[in-house]
Amino acid sequence: MTTVKLIEYAQASAEVRAVYDDIMATRKVDSVNNFWKALASHPPTLRRTWESIKQVMAPGALDALTKEMLYLAVSATNGCEYCIASHTASARKQGMTDAMLGELMAVVGMANETNSLADGFQVEVDDTFRKI
Amino acid sequence: MTTVKLIEYAQASAEVRAVYDDIMATRKVDSVNNFWKALASHPPTLRRTWESIKQVMAPGALDALTKEMLYLAVSATNGCEYCIASHTASARKQGMTDAMLGELMAVVGMANETNSLADGFQVEVDDTFRKI
Amino acid sequence: MTTVKLIEYAQASAEVRAVYDDIMATRKVDSVNNFWKALASHPPTLRRTWESIKQVMAPGALDALTKEMLYLAVSATNGCEYCIASHTASARKQGMTDAMLGELMAVVGMANETNSLADGFQVEVDDTFRKI
Amino acid sequence: MTTVKLIEYAQASAEVRAVYDDIMATRKVDSVNNFWKALASHPPTLRRTWESIKQVMAPGALDALTKEMLYLAVSATNGCEYCIASHTASARKQGMTDAMLGELMAVVGMANETNSLADGFQVEVDDTFRKI
Amino acid sequence: MTTVKLIEYAQASAEVRAVYDDIMATRKVDSVNNFWKALASHPPTLRRTWESIKQVMAPGALDALTKEMLYLAVSATNGCEYCIASHTASARKQGMTDAMLGELMAVVGMANETNSLADGFQVEVDDTFRKI
Amino acid sequence: MTTVKLIEYAQASAEVRAVYDDIMATRKVDSVNNFWKALASHPPTLRRTWESIKQVMAPGALDALTKEMLYLAVSATNGCEYCIASHTASARKQGMTDAMLGELMAVVGMANETNSLADGFQVEVDDTFRKI
Repeated sequence: MTTVKLIEYAQASAEVRAVYDDIMATRKVDSVNNFWKALASHPPTLRRTWESIKQVMAPGALDALTKEMLYLAVSATNGCEYCIASHTASARKQGMTDAMLGELMAVVGMANETNSLADGFQVEVDDTFRKI
Repeated sequence: MTTVKLIEYAQASAEVRAVYDDIMATRKVDSVNNFWKALASHPPTLRRTWESIKQVMAPGALDALTKEMLYLAVSATNGCEYCIASHTASARKQGMTDAMLGELMAVVGMANETNSLADGFQVEVDDTFRKI
Repeated sequence: MTTVKLIEYAQASAEVRAVYDDIMATRKVDSVNNFWKALASHPPTLRRTWESIKQVMAPGALDALTKEMLYLAVSATNGCEYCIASHTASARKQGMTDAMLGELMAVVGMANETNSLADGFQVEVDDTFRKI
Repeated sequence: MTTVKLIEYAQASAEVRAVYDDIMATRKVDSVNNFWKALASHPPTLRRTWESIKQVMAPGALDALTKEMLYLAVSATNGCEYCIASHTASARKQGMTDAMLGELMAVVGMANETNSLADGFQVEVDDTFRKI
Repeated sequence: MTTVKLIEYAQASAEVRAVYDDIMATRKVDSVNNFWKALASHPPTLRRTWESIKQVMAPGALDALTKEMLYLAVSATNGCEYCIASHTASARKQGMTDAMLGELMAVVGMANETNSLADGFQVEVDDTFRKI
Repeated sequence: MTTVKLIEYAQASAEVRAVYDDIMATRKVDSVNNFWKALASHPPTLRRTWESIKQVMAPGALDALTKEMLYLAVSATNGCEYCIASHTASARKQGMTDAMLGELMAVVGMANETNSLADGFQVEVDDTFRKI
């Protein structure tokens, strides 16, 4: 159970409502998720986190779907239940198919496996990787 | 320092050489990296890991660059030095630009931030994410 | 569901009861939490863990509230549901307000973000940080 | 070795210099650390991360030292070498003594221990922790 | 809730059934667990993962029980609920007693504690550990 | 570089020397490792950590080698360089062969892979695992 009170729109301060309005307008939805309602318990964190997410997730050199899949890969690695659920849903909305999700998870799994192998054997970085 | 002896091609058994040969042929390179030389201390792990990586990283529903970027996102999250170095190099080879790397890391950073916020406040998953 | 049987006071051995009694006396409460009832499945772990927690969490150079907040920061980073729930409750008991919790989580979020950025770009430690 | 080129002040764009200037003015120092020079490879990430850090680390309901210690607790948990080095240095600057560092690490260690115990036994959250 | 549809035997393709049959035959059970039913949403991942698990978990230089306990130690460290539940059950089947589980978790807890202490103080590796 | 001064025997207080003496006597060695010299910057943490390690790592329901291998599995998962180096060395001293290390790492790798798959697909725990 969330450790802070969820702030519903009806009870929200003007500052919080302004962020909720921007989330709903940007995402073309008519309500905000629990994540934002929990952050609203600390309005500066709500506003800063939303402004950052909006900037970071906007399409740029990487498209929106690739960004959602990267988000999901990190969340699966950390085992964050909320984030896995929300970013699987967002990635599907952006066009992720079952086959893409299957390959994504296969990569995530292999990466976690070989990360522990490279760390576990303390493999030294090849000089060839050091050029930038 | 690697906790096992690195196996060089010259000292390798026929079984290990067969894997090294396949790695070099598949990747069109003329030597194998330290990671494989360390795994060769346990030939079944070398062979299985290579067969898995070869299968998982082949282009499919996701292209090779996207897969390398997902690998890098996981490795950055885990802080695996070897894997970050090698998969940054591989992703660059596949066409990742500085701008793409910048956006990738921005997503990885945000995902790690919001993972800890969602976990830290124990936000409950919205029903809307539960449909599959 | 807990993977071991919870040991209730009524069924507990004298050794376990002695620890339970000390927990209740030290914390001025009249029952022990599930965590201790689970550890009681292995009495040496119960006793050692309690003795360590009692020593580590006692006020010293850091006050009890700061210690609880540090505990919560680690637990949020690890995503340990039980520990987040129990240490949020303990920190509130010690005086943590909603504003303090909001700022704590903001720091935890930023730290997790910049940890993955520093690792992800493999930033080398500045010499200036090396003096002790 | 950092996977991107470090951007020195002399080579920096006006946009990057503006951030560097603000970092130096805010922290009353005459150069910026490698972390910022690495982020400068992607100016939007540099600016956003600095603005966030500046806001989050400013004294508020929690003082600056407590915030640095929380940052260090997270960084030690994640094993982020760069962040441990830089935030140990920052916390010392803010007044952290050896005794405080010793107690901080003792709490971090215990929290990591009991996080794995609570997770490992899958202890269910007590109802008493669920009130907010 | 699982983010993909679980594939039951009755609906499974011939390719998936072949893997399910091998799992049931190898483990001498008459159904497969949810983990495999979820992986079946991506048949190549199902087959590769099962082939790897079958090879890795077979008794060799280490017996089956030791392998299950190592699996559990990793899963407890990562806080993976599903894996802790399934590998606690498997280890018990292989003969793990309550006393063994208690000692296993005690080691896991200590290792997580001292990992964060060694990382947190950035202790340099003694030369004596570097010989292989 | 270690963030605290390493305490050498010659400079150590009587309290610290007593712990060093017990470490050397218990382990039949004539010096202590850097880990203990770092912890000695906070004597209560030195003493408590040593007493706990001594108790936890003593042979019981699990033998000393199994305990060292579990310690190594956790350390490889966390990527703790110091701990991987020291516990690989300790496990070898207790009789771990190259073949055993290879199998151990294979299990660690698979566990990390399937942990992220089970978390990533949010697989629900089968009822059959819930019996204790």
